[in-house]
Amino acid sequence: MRFTSETSSDGVTQQLFILDQIPGVLWTPEGATGTHPLVLMGHGGGQHKLAPDIVAGAYRFVVECGFAVAAVDVPGHGDRPTDPEYDRIATENAARIDAGEEVAPLVASFQALVARQTVPEWRRVLDALQQLEHVGTGPVGYWGVCLGCGLGVPFVAAEPRVRAAVLGLGGALASAEPAARITVPVEFLLQWDDERVPRSAGLALYDAFASTEKTLHANPGKHAETPAFELDSTLRFFARHLA
Amino acid sequence: MRFTSETSSDGVTQQLFILDQIPGVLWTPEGATGTHPLVLMGHGGGQHKLAPDIVAGAYRFVVECGFAVAAVDVPGHGDRPTDPEYDRIATENAARIDAGEEVAPLVASFQALVARQTVPEWRRVLDALQQLEHVGTGPVGYWGVCLGCGLGVPFVAAEPRVRAAVLGLGGALASAEPAARITVPVEFLLQWDDERVPRSAGLALYDAFASTEKTLHANPGKHAETPAFELDSTLRFFARHLA
Repeated sequence: MRFTSETSSDGVTQQLFILDQIPGVLWTPEGATGTHPLVLMGHGGGQHKLAPDIVAGAYRFVVECGFAVAAVDVPGHGDRPTDPEYDRIATENAARIDAGEEVAPLVASFQALVARQTVPEWRRVLDALQQLEHVGTGPVGYWGVCLGCGLGVPFVAAEPRVRAAVLGLGGALASAEPAARITVPVEFLLQWDDERVPRSAGLALYDAFASTEKTLHANPGKHAETPAFELDSTLRFFARHLA
Repeated sequence: MRFTSETSSDGVTQQLFILDQIPGVLWTPEGATGTHPLVLMGHGGGQHKLAPDIVAGAYRFVVECGFAVAAVDVPGHGDRPTDPEYDRIATENAARIDAGEEVAPLVASFQALVARQTVPEWRRVLDALQQLEHVGTGPVGYWGVCLGCGLGVPFVAAEPRVRAAVLGLGGALASAEPAARITVPVEFLLQWDDERVPRSAGLALYDAFASTEKTLHANPGKHAETPAFELDSTLRFFARHLA
């Protein structure tokens, strides 16, 4: 893990890093030493590790909860090069959608393919982060919606260090199978009028989690219209399970 | 409004009252003077104004939010005499259920009948409470699940003084029509494995509210198993909308 930049503002230190050619970012309380709970955040499709919702959430987790927070770019996103194989599939999928094929199964199989790469990547990043003196091996949480849910569900299912997860804006077709292997507390966000994930698919994904503590938070509005107060709830959820 | 008892503990003053033969209870911060936000709480079926969940919620609203809180007995419940007409219908319904009739439509029509009495009763109680020097005409909230939802939905729909409501454990058959007239913020509780309210009926009731801000909180478990952390969320919801 090689750090390439370190800046601080508002009591938060932001360090950019590269691990095995994976670009990432770590936020910690300024001057932090010793072990801290760590929240890994997965960005959305077409976004990257420094997208506004990631940064906004990360700052609040650090400032209000005293957590460490990290995010990395998904292959083909942010500072990573485009991946010819993924590009070829994306182009093929676009043509199949134009020809009238259903979108959801194509997205689901594409996310499953990418997850086969990101799950081991994220586990290696977690290994490296936990070796840092100012992160350590404290409790770990995961936050991710949209693509961050599609890739997050198989990650949380595979990674026993994750103790609690906030997921959402994803459907059962992509994620029900790994969801059924998740037993940690889950807060699941669903947009009641989501134009990209059918309501029934979102409800079915919530249903699929094996967790005894799982809360569905549904709100009116489209895919990108999750109300701001849900971030308040997310903070309290992680504070309850990681602090 | 005639007060029949006044006691205080843990910083909370509890006053029992009777208004037009309706027995009720008012909780306020000890020594309170002047206007306070007021939360009306509707108890569940077979319960009463001093049922444990009502008292527990009321104390937290008073202590943590500084609100006034009131609850009254529903006809045929608590300190109120049994009502021969309601008893006759309940007995008839029991026989019809034994004979194989569906439960939900019978409960729905019975709750609609009782609501025709309780809506004007609760509005008169609200009138009287708001004339008290230590309550006044501040913002009003409503909390009620189960029967407290069945009677609460038509009350909130009819009463413009109510600015926010926590409802739940009820279904669309009983409440969809008045729910479609509710436009204030709603937090709606649903138990995913409710043995009394079918999941689809609960989801349909959430769907029916006309409110632009409405949040569905679903959790695993049966009708009576709403997790304790939902009361924390209820407090924050009312604090946001009434304080």
